[in-house]
Amino acid sequence: MKILIINGPNLNLLGKREPQIYGNQSFEIYLEELKSKTTIDLDYFQSNIEGEIINSLQTSNHDGIIINAGGYTHTSVAIRDCISGINLPVVEVHISNITSREEFRHTSLISPVAIGCVFGFGLKGYELALRYFIAE
Amino acid sequence: MKILIINGPNLNLLGKREPQIYGNQSFEIYLEELKSKTTIDLDYFQSNIEGEIINSLQTSNHDGIIINAGGYTHTSVAIRDCISGINLPVVEVHISNITSREEFRHTSLISPVAIGCVFGFGLKGYELALRYFIAE
Amino acid sequence: MKILIINGPNLNLLGKREPQIYGNQSFEIYLEELKSKTTIDLDYFQSNIEGEIINSLQTSNHDGIIINAGGYTHTSVAIRDCISGINLPVVEVHISNITSREEFRHTSLISPVAIGCVFGFGLKGYELALRYFIAE
Amino acid sequence: MKILIINGPNLNLLGKREPQIYGNQSFEIYLEELKSKTTIDLDYFQSNIEGEIINSLQTSNHDGIIINAGGYTHTSVAIRDCISGINLPVVEVHISNITSREEFRHTSLISPVAIGCVFGFGLKGYELALRYFIAE
Amino acid sequence: MKILIINGPNLNLLGKREPQIYGNQSFEIYLEELKSKTTIDLDYFQSNIEGEIINSLQTSNHDGIIINAGGYTHTSVAIRDCISGINLPVVEVHISNITSREEFRHTSLISPVAIGCVFGFGLKGYELALRYFIAE
Amino acid sequence: MKILIINGPNLNLLGKREPQIYGNQSFEIYLEELKSKTTIDLDYFQSNIEGEIINSLQTSNHDGIIINAGGYTHTSVAIRDCISGINLPVVEVHISNITSREEFRHTSLISPVAIGCVFGFGLKGYELALRYFIAE
Amino acid sequence: MKILIINGPNLNLLGKREPQIYGNQSFEIYLEELKSKTTIDLDYFQSNIEGEIINSLQTSNHDGIIINAGGYTHTSVAIRDCISGINLPVVEVHISNITSREEFRHTSLISPVAIGCVFGFGLKGYELALRYFIAE
Amino acid sequence: MKILIINGPNLNLLGKREPQIYGNQSFEIYLEELKSKTTIDLDYFQSNIEGEIINSLQTSNHDGIIINAGGYTHTSVAIRDCISGINLPVVEVHISNITSREEFRHTSLISPVAIGCVFGFGLKGYELALRYFIAE
Amino acid sequence: MKILIINGPNLNLLGKREPQIYGNQSFEIYLEELKSKTTIDLDYFQSNIEGEIINSLQTSNHDGIIINAGGYTHTSVAIRDCISGINLPVVEVHISNITSREEFRHTSLISPVAIGCVFGFGLKGYELALRYFIAE
Amino acid sequence: MKILIINGPNLNLLGKREPQIYGNQSFEIYLEELKSKTTIDLDYFQSNIEGEIINSLQTSNHDGIIINAGGYTHTSVAIRDCISGINLPVVEVHISNITSREEFRHTSLISPVAIGCVFGFGLKGYELALRYFIAE
Amino acid sequence: MKILIINGPNLNLLGKREPQIYGNQSFEIYLEELKSKTTIDLDYFQSNIEGEIINSLQTSNHDGIIINAGGYTHTSVAIRDCISGINLPVVEVHISNITSREEFRHTSLISPVAIGCVFGFGLKGYELALRYFIAE
Amino acid sequence: MKILIINGPNLNLLGKREPQIYGNQSFEIYLEELKSKTTIDLDYFQSNIEGEIINSLQTSNHDGIIINAGGYTHTSVAIRDCISGINLPVVEVHISNITSREEFRHTSLISPVAIGCVFGFGLKGYELALRYFIAE
Repeated sequence: MKILIINGPNLNLLGKREPQIYGNQSFEIYLEELKSKTTIDLDYFQSNIEGEIINSLQTSNHDGIIINAGGYTHTSVAIRDCISGINLPVVEVHISNITSREEFRHTSLISPVAIGCVFGFGLKGYELALRYFIAE
Repeated sequence: MKILIINGPNLNLLGKREPQIYGNQSFEIYLEELKSKTTIDLDYFQSNIEGEIINSLQTSNHDGIIINAGGYTHTSVAIRDCISGINLPVVEVHISNITSREEFRHTSLISPVAIGCVFGFGLKGYELALRYFIAE
Repeated sequence: MKILIINGPNLNLLGKREPQIYGNQSFEIYLEELKSKTTIDLDYFQSNIEGEIINSLQTSNHDGIIINAGGYTHTSVAIRDCISGINLPVVEVHISNITSREEFRHTSLISPVAIGCVFGFGLKGYELALRYFIAE
Repeated sequence: MKILIINGPNLNLLGKREPQIYGNQSFEIYLEELKSKTTIDLDYFQSNIEGEIINSLQTSNHDGIIINAGGYTHTSVAIRDCISGINLPVVEVHISNITSREEFRHTSLISPVAIGCVFGFGLKGYELALRYFIAE
Repeated sequence: MKILIINGPNLNLLGKREPQIYGNQSFEIYLEELKSKTTIDLDYFQSNIEGEIINSLQTSNHDGIIINAGGYTHTSVAIRDCISGINLPVVEVHISNITSREEFRHTSLISPVAIGCVFGFGLKGYELALRYFIAE
Repeated sequence: MKILIINGPNLNLLGKREPQIYGNQSFEIYLEELKSKTTIDLDYFQSNIEGEIINSLQTSNHDGIIINAGGYTHTSVAIRDCISGINLPVVEVHISNITSREEFRHTSLISPVAIGCVFGFGLKGYELALRYFIAE
Repeated sequence: MKILIINGPNLNLLGKREPQIYGNQSFEIYLEELKSKTTIDLDYFQSNIEGEIINSLQTSNHDGIIINAGGYTHTSVAIRDCISGINLPVVEVHISNITSREEFRHTSLISPVAIGCVFGFGLKGYELALRYFIAE
Repeated sequence: MKILIINGPNLNLLGKREPQIYGNQSFEIYLEELKSKTTIDLDYFQSNIEGEIINSLQTSNHDGIIINAGGYTHTSVAIRDCISGINLPVVEVHISNITSREEFRHTSLISPVAIGCVFGFGLKGYELALRYFIAE
Repeated sequence: MKILIINGPNLNLLGKREPQIYGNQSFEIYLEELKSKTTIDLDYFQSNIEGEIINSLQTSNHDGIIINAGGYTHTSVAIRDCISGINLPVVEVHISNITSREEFRHTSLISPVAIGCVFGFGLKGYELALRYFIAE
Repeated sequence: MKILIINGPNLNLLGKREPQIYGNQSFEIYLEELKSKTTIDLDYFQSNIEGEIINSLQTSNHDGIIINAGGYTHTSVAIRDCISGINLPVVEVHISNITSREEFRHTSLISPVAIGCVFGFGLKGYELALRYFIAE
Repeated sequence: MKILIINGPNLNLLGKREPQIYGNQSFEIYLEELKSKTTIDLDYFQSNIEGEIINSLQTSNHDGIIINAGGYTHTSVAIRDCISGINLPVVEVHISNITSREEFRHTSLISPVAIGCVFGFGLKGYELALRYFIAE
Repeated sequence: MKILIINGPNLNLLGKREPQIYGNQSFEIYLEELKSKTTIDLDYFQSNIEGEIINSLQTSNHDGIIINAGGYTHTSVAIRDCISGINLPVVEVHISNITSREEFRHTSLISPVAIGCVFGFGLKGYELALRYFIAE
């Protein structure tokens, strides 16, 4: 089983950016930890460019996708359309609890086309999302 | 470690009610499966009465709570206030992906006072929520 | 044929409460009149507690239900979900014409999951609703 | 006792138009059935023209009116004003349950000036409405 | 193949009314030009009366309809219902680009029940709409 | 100088309809009084049919128009478009003060394309409107 | 008979301010013309200060008031309350047609408590308003 | 004179729950203080169950009621209807200033049917409310 | 202890203006009654001018302020800013229950920056507000 | 004459993505068909990246542009500004009828700055759009 | 060159009022600093009264105006109209960044009629605004 | 001191695009003028691609940033998040006065996370923004 994790804009700043919201750990280090806990094959893609996230989704040959679209979560019909258009299960993750932040973060254009949503558990949310793909 | 799972109105009908949305399994059977997979102590409470859910939250002596408030999710300021008022980590679960259903289900009054949210993974969502409480 | 009539909060005050809106007759007396006009078996349940109305709906073994959910009409997703979840025809009745009263009474969460609606005919509305169940 | 039934636009297509919503029976045939069940004198008027419905209401010499204003239900202040302006009890009927269809059908400009409303019972709704006029 | 073109209110003023928006040519002259370019049989109906447009749609025996409902575009549930109720492909045309005019012109009640929409090309829009019906 | 007065739906009921709002005088009698006070030529047209009001506006050969579009005031884009499309000064009159009645009466689609508006002076409003046309 | 004309903020600039909207004549000169046409006693008050307009309304000993509250029209609950609180007929005038200008000018807080409204006739609107007070 | 104080959901947590908002004193202790300051007979009822609050209101035999409906303040049409339906003066109290908290707390369904409102004075608000009932 | 009572526009009309809403007593007479019941020093300021109310707030040397800003309650950001800017406890009073009147009266710009609110108790509301300042 | 066709995000998936909405044909094959029917020179550009679509528009040296901006249609002020800023006629095409899909698809930011719009005719819409550029 | 700086309500409290938002410096001292840096003639006017700000604008004989209308920014159509009505370039300044404060501060009625806006730079914003008037 | 100026989409067209709104000067020429007036080191970056603007912000090693995000101003949560995430003072500039243009331009997602805003001064706005960074 192969899963692709896609992170959107500014998530390359994790550990540096607003640590009171997003924590102190970089995603790269967390990813190593996550890999060490699972037998699933994990690929990782990060981009600040909306269209490149779409390219990544379109060309994915994985069994499932975990996406945190960052700021594009709330504005990108194009990523939403892409998820609808490809034939893969997609799980949406957010590190912070977007429902308790500014009002414009309460609506995700991604959620309605995802299998399910995992919000607010910090980086651990990626692990929870991954668990969805583990049959047991 | 002791976790309390609280299910709100109509979740006692699980397995019987609208199986195309909620699946065919009763919660009691699922709970047994869940218990067999974990060393955490799981208690369970279900009620159709809003105030009894509040009573249950107020008197809980657990290390954490997993709540699926059912229809009260979208209307109960009283349950929300209770979660803010007690000093326990609360995780919100929904079996279906509430963001892709009727508009009035898109807003949860519970979410902003929960630690985090797990939506759309069927009964497996309770397992994902439980995972949050497992330090590792 | 057995029909259950469910009345929600404050309808136990009928005949006493705001007679300019709801009339002077208690529901118990009206019910006797109604029974005398029909061969259908009529059961009656009234509660001020939202969750008990749900309990009553879930345990009903009738051929159909006539419900006037009173103030819960406009706020109860939980009762709505219950009606969707049980497999019985439900007719919604309101004594007053809710469309000509305060704006918050114009929207019923019950209506969209009911077979049909009967508003504004005073207590006679229950008779009209009952007529729906009489094949002829 | 004489009652006038007024049907608005496209109701002359009943039985032919969208049978999954409106059923297979033409109104003319249903009307004969209805007449056969009652001693009330029933007149019938149908028009696709808003102003002719107003003309019909203004010149009515009946004891009451049953109206299904079709598409004008949601847009006609002029028909509403006419109902307010004449001195007759008017009952509003809709064949489908307008509260469970498109949002723009949820608001009726007619309802607040009608005695009462009967929605969603198919053609049988006209019989229920008629019942209102039968003292008993 | 026979196509009916229906023009709604004030389109009989074309060439005279607000030429900076609608141009200088009357529809009758344009229609002759259009007929000379096609082998399709073109019928034409114009009315300022909403209900007569409905009558015309209901009694049409054509293979398709091109409609510019003029001011009724934004207000007529009755015409919309009629288009849904008859079994013919309907194409919506507007001479001006309604999306760049007053806000109340941005919403067409006709569009969602039409096959497709052609806005803003002047009278040439009718030719584009006609092209839809030409298999090739 | 020739002025056309156009009254919309239900204004033929004046003196009979809701006298607490519209007064006790029929428009025909008032019109005679008005004619006796002025040297201006007054024509009068009333219809309950939206499209006939449009026909009347389109074929008018007067120096100005006084219109009370009744219920169509709040719903008719078609009459509005017609007023924009003809080249005549149009004054809007309402007998009652529409700004202190139901919310849906607060917006007139006619007002923005009229020269000016006269609301709330009872039948005397027509005289005030007429005064606008008297150079002095 | 004595009438008080009250003009609100910036109307002292009439004739100088935005002549394409408000014309070229100062109010003082217009007032002389108006006085010369009527036997009614006309007093005049202008202020840019909201509270002074209220003072003027409270201390008025006239038979009626004509008010153009200028920019306060759309924002002053205090002037509205004052008009409700004194026992005098008040007519509202606006020089321009406020319904065809910016959206925030479409709502007048004064209109619902005035006898009637006269909008859009330039300075002649004051004459029309005055006419209301002339019994005849 | 006998007054009933009703406290809604979570107010049994007073002194423990969110002390930065609600203070450190339990209501039971405050009540004793309040009783010691007045000759009025004070009864007290608290429940987390909406319907039991309605039951309490319906069966009250007091001269007046002071209610703090807690979270039900913002959602309960049923409690509002009950207050309208019984014939007793009801005063609404909130410990915190609900107008400066989350937007959903700004609207109280109780306020419009209460005699008056007392918000923001901490527990002292109950004393102010009580003062209303003391003729002097 | 010195308290300043500030009344806004039209409150100088108390006893004369709309007595069915505001009662029959002038504030001056009520103030004498109030002074006779308390040992607190009471100063009083009334103005119809928004800016003078601000001046009065800025120059106050009292221990607290009771304000009824009248119509400015719903529109004055400037008075709100002033209350935020000075360092004094301010209590808001309204004679009528503003939550049961017109919708635009439901929102007070003053409330969120006041200590607390007292609405609907007639003139007695000032006494309740005063009570807040009495330590006991 | 040279025309540039620009397709936005996910339109490279045509024929593969959601065929029940977008059909089974890839755009490349359709383009060949279209070229074979016309003497106009057709260039084609597709990108998933918003800014590259802007680059393409800015550097175009064609006589006109046909654009289907895909998901950016509903969110891109930047593409809209670009179309306003270049001096070329632009026609907007959508394969599906966007007015009958999700609400967020009903508003196009492109439409108001396009010459005209062609929605809902499948791939044939590009041919209709092209026809606009053919003088005849 | 002569520039008039106008400050609205509560800006006379600068240095004393909410220093965490507005800083510690009084405007008078800042003005002296500003004068020392420029050869432009600077006049200064402050008032808490809306109408006096209008008076000041109307009687200005300067080459330009810098205005910080304080709380009137968000509510004063009258000041806006005045700025439109006089023929002077007006620059709007706010000390704090109004776009990051309460929602009602996000809309300025002044901005659309000003030349430009300078928000959020503390007192230095007046210097930036002044720079606009310096040709160079 | 080093400042980075970032211009968003279509600002590379300055001098060519809509000169009635944006003027006739290209930014490159203006930049030379600006550099000649200051001793501050100015770097410049322009892109039509949202993600590249984010990349530029993330990798900036300047003392401050002046950004005009063009069309992304109103839609980019991603750029907003980036500005919040980096630790640099950012000033927002717009050449035109966005508050007096189309409604969708009135809201900037950038403004609330910027130090301050400078709108409407043409290219001179960049100079004003720069002045903010000059201590003096």
